[in-house]
Amino acid sequence: MSARRENSRPVSIRVVGTIRTPFPQASGTPIQAVYGEGIEARVVVDEEYSPALDDIDGFDRIWLIYWMDRVEAFRPKVIPYRDIRERGLFATRSPTRPNPIGMSVVRLLRREGNVLHVADIDTLDGTPLLDIKPYVPEFDAHPGSRAGWLDAPGMDRRHADARFHAEVPGEPEDDGTR
Amino acid sequence: MSARRENSRPVSIRVVGTIRTPFPQASGTPIQAVYGEGIEARVVVDEEYSPALDDIDGFDRIWLIYWMDRVEAFRPKVIPYRDIRERGLFATRSPTRPNPIGMSVVRLLRREGNVLHVADIDTLDGTPLLDIKPYVPEFDAHPGSRAGWLDAPGMDRRHADARFHAEVPGEPEDDGTR
Repeated sequence: MSARRENSRPVSIRVVGTIRTPFPQASGTPIQAVYGEGIEARVVVDEEYSPALDDIDGFDRIWLIYWMDRVEAFRPKVIPYRDIRERGLFATRSPTRPNPIGMSVVRLLRREGNVLHVADIDTLDGTPLLDIKPYVPEFDAHPGSRAGWLDAPGMDRRHADARFHAEVPGEPEDDGTR
Repeated sequence: MSARRENSRPVSIRVVGTIRTPFPQASGTPIQAVYGEGIEARVVVDEEYSPALDDIDGFDRIWLIYWMDRVEAFRPKVIPYRDIRERGLFATRSPTRPNPIGMSVVRLLRREGNVLHVADIDTLDGTPLLDIKPYVPEFDAHPGSRAGWLDAPGMDRRHADARFHAEVPGEPEDDGTR
């Protein structure tokens, strides 16, 4: 560490809220927010962070950054949900990452105090929230980008199974609505 | 915590690499990757994670998720770089977040072993890397989204100043090329 790193913020996370969704476990949960279109959820931000939500109402979409607390340990190679062969983890959106940090772009329906009502969700119920960022097309939208193996995926799966999560045997697999 | 949370992964971060850029400090650094167009950088992934980079070559763009280690503490209200009035932090991309997690979509030029050569960068030199995800337009590109106050920003600034970082007095402010 050089001298100018003396003021570094330590790499230490604080949970700032909780994402409440209809998905108690991985099986049946959409694998991406686009595949959870229309499904509603609540983002409950801890009261102390509520003032930081001001001005968010004007955005159609927001990024949720969260900690995927129920995924299994890091695997360098995975068979992703949308393929039938193994890929390098960093070339996939699979959750068994070195840091299980997820990001989802969801539609913002409305703010009520410290609660954001959102739609198009793909996270498990109770997922710890780390950050919220506004979705800004000028920064985030690159519609023409080549997407490697995902441009011709080996599988059209849109909902998760239990391959990346240790699910409790005997729990209902799915509520039957998906 | 309910029973099914017993297998939770603790919220604890590991650094998986380092982003090497031409920007030693905030002043003069692009405030978003799009404003760093053409500027090249290296993402040096720790050797143990190198196998996880396989198959990444086919993607035009990747997300870098990183820890903004030199920003000041959380502020619920900020005057963002692209405005002249205060906004709620979560309605901005300003770095003084509860968790200073940054994400940038950069162009992937090529992979050499554990090093990714990228362009369009906006991070400080030496920034700790947390994750790499492929950029997938189907998941990430929503070009028509309304972007609140950022649709008519109060200021056209594209490079940072020292408002969110404690810079060392006497260090050169800028190399004059930006």
